[in-house]
Amino acid sequence: MTVKISQTAEIQKFFEEAAGFGNDQGSPRLKQIMLRVLQDSAKIIEDLEITDDEFWTAVDYLNRLGGRGEAGLLVAGLGLEHFLDLLQDAKDEQVGRTGGTPRTIEGPLYVAGAPLAEGEVRMDDGSEDGVATVMFLEGRVLDLDGKPIAGATVDLWHANTKGLYSYFDQSQSEYNLRRRIVTDAEGRYRARSIVPSGYGCDPQGPTQECLDQLGRHGQRPAHIHFFISAPGYRHLTTQINLSGDQYLWDDFAYATRDGLVGEVSFVEDAAAADKRGVSGRFAELEFDFQLQPAGSAEDEQRSHRPRALQVQGA
Amino acid sequence: MTVKISQTAEIQKFFEEAAGFGNDQGSPRLKQIMLRVLQDSAKIIEDLEITDDEFWTAVDYLNRLGGRGEAGLLVAGLGLEHFLDLLQDAKDEQVGRTGGTPRTIEGPLYVAGAPLAEGEVRMDDGSEDGVATVMFLEGRVLDLDGKPIAGATVDLWHANTKGLYSYFDQSQSEYNLRRRIVTDAEGRYRARSIVPSGYGCDPQGPTQECLDQLGRHGQRPAHIHFFISAPGYRHLTTQINLSGDQYLWDDFAYATRDGLVGEVSFVEDAAAADKRGVSGRFAELEFDFQLQPAGSAEDEQRSHRPRALQVQGA
Repeated sequence: MTVKISQTAEIQKFFEEAAGFGNDQGSPRLKQIMLRVLQDSAKIIEDLEITDDEFWTAVDYLNRLGGRGEAGLLVAGLGLEHFLDLLQDAKDEQVGRTGGTPRTIEGPLYVAGAPLAEGEVRMDDGSEDGVATVMFLEGRVLDLDGKPIAGATVDLWHANTKGLYSYFDQSQSEYNLRRRIVTDAEGRYRARSIVPSGYGCDPQGPTQECLDQLGRHGQRPAHIHFFISAPGYRHLTTQINLSGDQYLWDDFAYATRDGLVGEVSFVEDAAAADKRGVSGRFAELEFDFQLQPAGSAEDEQRSHRPRALQVQGA
Repeated sequence: MTVKISQTAEIQKFFEEAAGFGNDQGSPRLKQIMLRVLQDSAKIIEDLEITDDEFWTAVDYLNRLGGRGEAGLLVAGLGLEHFLDLLQDAKDEQVGRTGGTPRTIEGPLYVAGAPLAEGEVRMDDGSEDGVATVMFLEGRVLDLDGKPIAGATVDLWHANTKGLYSYFDQSQSEYNLRRRIVTDAEGRYRARSIVPSGYGCDPQGPTQECLDQLGRHGQRPAHIHFFISAPGYRHLTTQINLSGDQYLWDDFAYATRDGLVGEVSFVEDAAAADKRGVSGRFAELEFDFQLQPAGSAEDEQRSHRPRALQVQGA
């Protein structure tokens, strides 16, 4: 018979003590959360008869996960980040906050402070010229009535042809493929960049190690991340996932959503290329975003998630 | 009203997919555990209305915790390691496996492969001579009838006068204060060492950061760790916690237990010191261990918890 002690008064009291209920210092909120985490952890250990070896394997895994800074990647891969979006969607629906471009996960690879541009910008540093396909990305930021929002900030970031992100991939130049574009009077943003490749978890990393044991791959379709913000509007964290990618609807991070597929057109037309100032095959992608009105000043801001901040010149 | 979606069929199916139930690769056991972890995590998020900021603070904390290798320290401090002992005690009691020296937590600071000695050994490298108090530690390993067990391995480790452990504190020599002693024909082990100081969590580390928010200190009484093993006997992981320490019954890791308090005697007697081959004040500590018979070969072994292994000469 399975032995269970976690619901006894003695153990409940012990966890209350461990969670700091025996003192009046510290954070009441963290104490509340920690007590629940301890209670639920103990129940899992009992219900699933977690062995000592399993427990310590998990503890060792947490050390290795954090040692590689992959906790944010793991919660994306396990669907918890997507769950937060679904939960927020449900909360919004309950209070009638609907419409606009769907939200989707941020992922762990944003870097704050990318160069600012007015209206249009080139995002790549040219280091993959001849290897990458040039991509012309443009669109508008609109309100729910379809009216353009001038002065909106389109903060976008994406991977290179190897699926790697600057800053985390130190071989790339500072802020390569990361820009902030302020929309023009017509709410328009324009970027010349390169077609990104899909992201894949490091095959040697702890996230992929976990996914392997779950029988899952760690691949994402090619995609472009966006933070879109404007005074008076609700902050939007979203992505364009590129049409035609084999992982478009088989995304290990569950970020692809209806309404977030970007239709990429590949153009092989010398005259069109000449007009664009490039040579050979290139890609075009047009995508408009629609923002909800802000309900409060806080609504205009992204979450306070700890994020990387590039030190200039580093 | 609190919005909850985690119990819907759609979300349950989503977590099953994320936990790998949609494929027949990987580890069925990990899938089972992961599904439960995802379900419980979602319920915690909903029930406690965990905000995005709180969620991402926790993810960032896990990265910092693992980055410092403190996951094993945190689970000790939160009482989960002690809970595992209490649960094993309850399992033992149910099947009538009682008696002998109580188990207590291992902690995260064991290093495998310490030097072996027959019967007796000096554990300290002399680097704290004049600062530390010399400690003579001895005792016997016995069976439940009180009969000596010859050839038992007493694998013991403790901190220096600063509360730090060799290997993790790289200023100490290799295996300082770590030894394995094989008991003599009378089941006896003898060690000359130094009186350890209590351990305290790194004030700058993530474990102490969490404890601070729970209003708790991160101190342990002075103590000595033991693995005791012998063919035919059940492996014992335990500690002697030293009498007189202010944290003896206020141990942040909850390791002190009835039956595990070691009575230290401080001797100031020139003749006694002379007989011991030392000068000045010294300490004596006698402690016997009693082992249960092994029920299986596996019983003779410690858990397969991943542990540090010193590379010779490193």
